[in-house]
Amino acid sequence: MFAKRLENLHPYVPGEQPKDRDYIKLNANENPFPPHESVAAAIKTAVTEKIEKLGLYPDPDSTELRKAIADMLNETGGVLNTAKVSGNKCSPSEENKIPFSVTPDMIFCGNGSDEVLSFVFYTFFDSDRPLVLPEFTYSFYPVYCGYYNIPMNPIKLRKDWTLDTEKMLSEANKTDSCTIFANPNAPTGIEIKREDVAAMIRRAPKDRIFIVDEAYADFGKESCIPLLKEFDNLVIVRTFSKSLSFAGMRLGYVVSSPALIKSIFTVKNSFNHFPVDFLAQTAGTASCKAAAYYAKNAAAIVQERDKFSAFLRKNGWFVIDSRTNFVFAKKDGHSGEEIYETVKKAGILIRHFATKGIEDFVRITIGTPEQMKKLSEVLGTL
Amino acid sequence: MFAKRLENLHPYVPGEQPKDRDYIKLNANENPFPPHESVAAAIKTAVTEKIEKLGLYPDPDSTELRKAIADMLNETGGVLNTAKVSGNKCSPSEENKIPFSVTPDMIFCGNGSDEVLSFVFYTFFDSDRPLVLPEFTYSFYPVYCGYYNIPMNPIKLRKDWTLDTEKMLSEANKTDSCTIFANPNAPTGIEIKREDVAAMIRRAPKDRIFIVDEAYADFGKESCIPLLKEFDNLVIVRTFSKSLSFAGMRLGYVVSSPALIKSIFTVKNSFNHFPVDFLAQTAGTASCKAAAYYAKNAAAIVQERDKFSAFLRKNGWFVIDSRTNFVFAKKDGHSGEEIYETVKKAGILIRHFATKGIEDFVRITIGTPEQMKKLSEVLGTL
Repeated sequence: MFAKRLENLHPYVPGEQPKDRDYIKLNANENPFPPHESVAAAIKTAVTEKIEKLGLYPDPDSTELRKAIADMLNETGGVLNTAKVSGNKCSPSEENKIPFSVTPDMIFCGNGSDEVLSFVFYTFFDSDRPLVLPEFTYSFYPVYCGYYNIPMNPIKLRKDWTLDTEKMLSEANKTDSCTIFANPNAPTGIEIKREDVAAMIRRAPKDRIFIVDEAYADFGKESCIPLLKEFDNLVIVRTFSKSLSFAGMRLGYVVSSPALIKSIFTVKNSFNHFPVDFLAQTAGTASCKAAAYYAKNAAAIVQERDKFSAFLRKNGWFVIDSRTNFVFAKKDGHSGEEIYETVKKAGILIRHFATKGIEDFVRITIGTPEQMKKLSEVLGTL
Repeated sequence: MFAKRLENLHPYVPGEQPKDRDYIKLNANENPFPPHESVAAAIKTAVTEKIEKLGLYPDPDSTELRKAIADMLNETGGVLNTAKVSGNKCSPSEENKIPFSVTPDMIFCGNGSDEVLSFVFYTFFDSDRPLVLPEFTYSFYPVYCGYYNIPMNPIKLRKDWTLDTEKMLSEANKTDSCTIFANPNAPTGIEIKREDVAAMIRRAPKDRIFIVDEAYADFGKESCIPLLKEFDNLVIVRTFSKSLSFAGMRLGYVVSSPALIKSIFTVKNSFNHFPVDFLAQTAGTASCKAAAYYAKNAAAIVQERDKFSAFLRKNGWFVIDSRTNFVFAKKDGHSGEEIYETVKKAGILIRHFATKGIEDFVRITIGTPEQMKKLSEVLGTL
């Protein structure tokens, strides 16, 4: 009864949402801070003063939202935790100043970065050329490869868990292929330098696309957005879900050259004209304007992350240096599953992966100081 | 730089949304009535009492919403304009009683019926068998065929603009193919009887899928939902956009057998886990519970439609009998484009199609009595 292409599907499994009890959720890299109050206010105003808008098709181009995203990127440099905050204004740190003005025609919006990534795979990756990607990275990439029948060429990480950019580049050049990786990477949390990304792209043919998934860049040191000045074949995917406390409203976006953005629009308009609904556009626009609030939150999460990493190390854990809102860590003598189960019994959800090579690790989202204190107490008993 | 599959894309063009002046919008089959006040109230309560939910991933299974949809279908028979309304309660008319209880495992939800249709095309239609569909029907179907590289076998309508079900069935059986059509059809507005649909499916192999797109069924006489008692290979696609005044919030759904629903979930979970955001789930659930309000609106639209059709006929127009919230009509001596332009100058948007065979027609959404009066005045000058 089903199309043959269904045989290639192996759905992604997101962080569990059990309903049997109230867990502390540190398993989906959600943000422990609520959205800014202006976001709730914008939604209330919209349904009070413009309720008829719920019955009309939304703007298929998300015009206002894309302008707000461009403004936010110019004001923050695309790395919230490093932005300078003064009152409710943001300005980028010296290292993260973008050497041009990001404009709305460089932005594409979709229903979460998962949908955006799916459109990007459709737009750029061919069925007859293997996509180069790291062996361990966001596990939805192989799912999309199955969905669109795109062959994969997974490249082993280096011994220190960093991306092997040299090997990725040589493999991509050998087969004239595109490349995708997350930076910071997931689930490792490691960030590579903007200059290392530039060095890769510089040595590849100009018509070969590089996708950098910056879902966690707001918790890192650098974004690759400044590289768009030099490269038209760079596609940066970002999300509102993590740093903008917006996972429930689904908003992801691409920053790239206007020509590539236009093609992603063509793909979207051949699939669903209106993936970003009226309230998501309204609330997303309000979120961008409250960047200063989210910048402070991101900085607080980074601080808590480093404190928690230090605690784990003091207790004999191996902890990878994280530039995200989670840590990836293991403790000798314990499997990831065992740690996960112990913590779950105490009412806290974290994540472990059955994948060979990382089965001893757990991935822990950074929550509030109170949540991390409670988790630390449980982990201290291991 | 782009994947080869992009060569097959010919995006759908939705009704225009010009910003140069305030038009009366009768070009996108939107509902002239606003959502029920309980919908706005549910959204305000959610962002007041559960603002943190905006920051957490929504329920990927839309559990509560799917239950609310199943309840609404059982209470209305899936044909809102014919439902009996008593206070804020609905019950189905005698002809539209569903002879079983629709359950949540028979429902799949997505981001508008466009996304839902896209998943359905992916799930059921193969690249090596031509999809049988009417020559004139919802023009997004050929777009999806391009998107997923599915060959098409378009079947001419009969002289009276009705679906040629005999020819569609014999063609589908000849090539062991699946079939899709809208009922009522778009842009003609003609509805075929449930029994005629049953007669088609009964004479086809049991593993060949039939998709019936019921976007407009709430303005018609019958739904095919009762046929799910007999057929496991029937897939019914429906939308909140038209009869539930919800186009801005994006909600579409499938009603089918649990086994087929499960497969559509697998496809969705390989593309984007969370296409229906937290507020769309919340507001959608509230909409279903206000079915009595929407049933009265649908009945009022049907009444206005029949009045407007009579007016056009009295003025010498050829008007196809509509069972939707729009009429498809033409007047000798005038092209569709000419009528569209005349009406646009008067500040009203309607739709015409450049497609050969229907280029003389215009498609007019039924608005409020005041809007239709204004349009009638303009059309009277032709």
